[in-house]
Amino acid sequence: MSPEQTAAALDAIPQPLVLIGADMRIAAMNARASELFRVAGIGRHYATVLRNPAVLDAIDAVLKGDRPGTARFYTGDSREGTWRVSAIPVRGDGGMMLSFEDVTDVEHAGQMRRDFVTNVSHELKTPLTALLGFIETLRGPAREDAAARDRFLEIMEKEAARMNRLVSDLLSLSRVETTERLRPTEKLSLREIAGTVVNAVRPMADAADVVLRLETEEGLETSAFDVMGDPDQLQQIVLNLVENAIKYGASGGEVTIRLSLREREAVFRGPGVQLDVIDKGEGFDPIHIPRLTERFYRVDTHRSREQGGTGLGLAIVKHIVSRHRGRFRIESAPGEGATFTILLPAA
Amino acid sequence: MSPEQTAAALDAIPQPLVLIGADMRIAAMNARASELFRVAGIGRHYATVLRNPAVLDAIDAVLKGDRPGTARFYTGDSREGTWRVSAIPVRGDGGMMLSFEDVTDVEHAGQMRRDFVTNVSHELKTPLTALLGFIETLRGPAREDAAARDRFLEIMEKEAARMNRLVSDLLSLSRVETTERLRPTEKLSLREIAGTVVNAVRPMADAADVVLRLETEEGLETSAFDVMGDPDQLQQIVLNLVENAIKYGASGGEVTIRLSLREREAVFRGPGVQLDVIDKGEGFDPIHIPRLTERFYRVDTHRSREQGGTGLGLAIVKHIVSRHRGRFRIESAPGEGATFTILLPAA
Ligand SMILES: Nc1ncnc2c1ncn2[C@@H]1O[C@H](COP(=O)(O)OP(=O)(O)OP(=O)(O)O)[C@@H](O)[C@H]1O
Ligand SMILES: Nc1ncnc2c1ncn2[C@@H]1O[C@H](COP(=O)(O)OP(=O)(O)OP(=O)(O)O)[C@@H](O)[C@H]1O
Ligand SMILES: [Mg+2]
Ligand SMILES: [Mg+2]
Repeated sequence: MSPEQTAAALDAIPQPLVLIGADMRIAAMNARASELFRVAGIGRHYATVLRNPAVLDAIDAVLKGDRPGTARFYTGDSREGTWRVSAIPVRGDGGMMLSFEDVTDVEHAGQMRRDFVTNVSHELKTPLTALLGFIETLRGPAREDAAARDRFLEIMEKEAARMNRLVSDLLSLSRVETTERLRPTEKLSLREIAGTVVNAVRPMADAADVVLRLETEEGLETSAFDVMGDPDQLQQIVLNLVENAIKYGASGGEVTIRLSLREREAVFRGPGVQLDVIDKGEGFDPIHIPRLTERFYRVDTHRSREQGGTGLGLAIVKHIVSRHRGRFRIESAPGEGATFTILLPAA
Repeated sequence: MSPEQTAAALDAIPQPLVLIGADMRIAAMNARASELFRVAGIGRHYATVLRNPAVLDAIDAVLKGDRPGTARFYTGDSREGTWRVSAIPVRGDGGMMLSFEDVTDVEHAGQMRRDFVTNVSHELKTPLTALLGFIETLRGPAREDAAARDRFLEIMEKEAARMNRLVSDLLSLSRVETTERLRPTEKLSLREIAGTVVNAVRPMADAADVVLRLETEEGLETSAFDVMGDPDQLQQIVLNLVENAIKYGASGGEVTIRLSLREREAVFRGPGVQLDVIDKGEGFDPIHIPRLTERFYRVDTHRSREQGGTGLGLAIVKHIVSRHRGRFRIESAPGEGATFTILLPAA
């Protein structure tokens, strides 16, 4: 192989690679390595090119003992990341190969799990403390106070029910994640699912004085809105969106569920089925949009808690839509209501 | 570079790599790739060597469109694993490079997180359902029944307190994990910590009719048991072990906390401080030992729950000991009590 061929071969490996010769000069360096170190250093002494202390330590380890050396280091550039470098001597050559593995995501996953535990714990701490306080009062000071008892038990029920919902939501989130790589195989009509949900939430809408409307493009059959889906999961996303619209958009007095077809949807390279859930309530600053689908994120935590919310509803929606290879969009502005849009590939 | 040099360079890259030439024959294949596919296939047509459908699909993608193709596949050999393969065309050559990334650990981490959520949820579901049931009964059928009320409120308090402990334990587990890579920097005496814990649990031991004994080798000063540690964390491990001994070993009537020095501890290549927590209770089948430090694992789930246990105590102990570069050992046999041993490097 010519040096050009070797260089081309190394460029076709996704990891950054640096080959150091026996003369301690850089014999080869692929495109990704040049990107990572922002320099194309072929022919130069390695120490003038790779200035990172952790990388130099790994090289030293090999130079001292002929044993592979590894280290991890951070890059502080635009795309901040954590890399694991390993230096391995090249057989019969006196030089060594440095390869760099991007472990940013792995480290991030560990951090996310810890954040998750912290969030869940804090979500539970508050209602549990309240419950314990009420129980103590009912066993002591308010032991003979029937009126206080009724009031307390009512609040306790609300708190316990919310915790129960939190736990169910956590379980369904975890179930959705487990199925995320499996493509759903059932053909079903999004129109029909919307109809079922509308019937189910009618009492909730009435209680909140909200008029529910289900709009479908004229002259289309139910089957025009067929998608490949998991019936329980699709029902859950529509339910979560409509419940949100009623809970947070009640002041607008109406919530519309609109179904339409997109003949040629660029993102799918084919037709799509669209479902919008539109309310005329207070809306929110669009600054929140990118974070709304994070677990436990709320625009107004206090208000969401009061409504029995757990902050997991939209995270579940996002995962289900992603499992269905769909798209999820949010639009809102203060005082102008909010529109939540789901777009799925037509079956 | 000679073909030998290229081969040696590829062998010094930790990922399995296969270079396919324009003639669709394997031009190079490093040692790890030969290991993965159990064949050294240089010179042969790729399809006779790489028989995995996902790998062949990735190659096809490149052949059809000159675009990188990726796929993931499982290997069913001794060391079962999941790999992500990417096929990238080699510039100006007509061939392509296949590189394989081991994503087993990443997938495993995801699975562990989901198992964790499922476990936590189930741990919470039971007491929450009980709580909701009691609240409902107190608001309805037992509304005027003072005796039932007292009884129910007592159980409710126990359940709520246990959930509260679960949440605190989850938080401390997550905190310990966060600090796991940081070496503790404070010098403190394990003897002193054991003394503090013994005083704190004395009332619990008395209530269980258990005699608590703290034994130290004769003639040694408190500072002989100095270790580098985090005071809160070390206190927590001793507390967890002593509480377990009292809770599950009460029938033995005594619990001994024994401190000793190991002059030359092989695992540390230096002196160690040892703490044993010994009970004479019922013990357990050693078959459980490897799993006892798993989260939520219990020998007898029902009994642990009754005692207010969450099954996280020993998992916390294990993580704290590991952060302190120590060793944790368990010994037991049915009817012969149990001994839990912590060994830390002496300061
Ligand atoms: N239609 C809406 N109008 C205004 N704010 C909304 C609307 N829908 C959602 N939000 C905001 O987004 C937040 C996140 O919604 P999400 O459904 O994830 O959680 P939640 O409703 O608080 O709890 P859960 O759905 O789990 O019971 C809500 O707390 C609320 O602040
Ligand atoms: N000294 C002991 N004798 C017998 N069994 C024990 C002893 N210590 C622990 N176990 C068993 O090991 C299990 C795990 O202990 P661990 O401390 O992790 O959880 P727990 O005590 O059930 O709950 P927690 O400590 O979180 O309140 C216990 O449930 C019990 O079955
Ligand atoms: Mg919601
Ligand atoms: Mg315990």
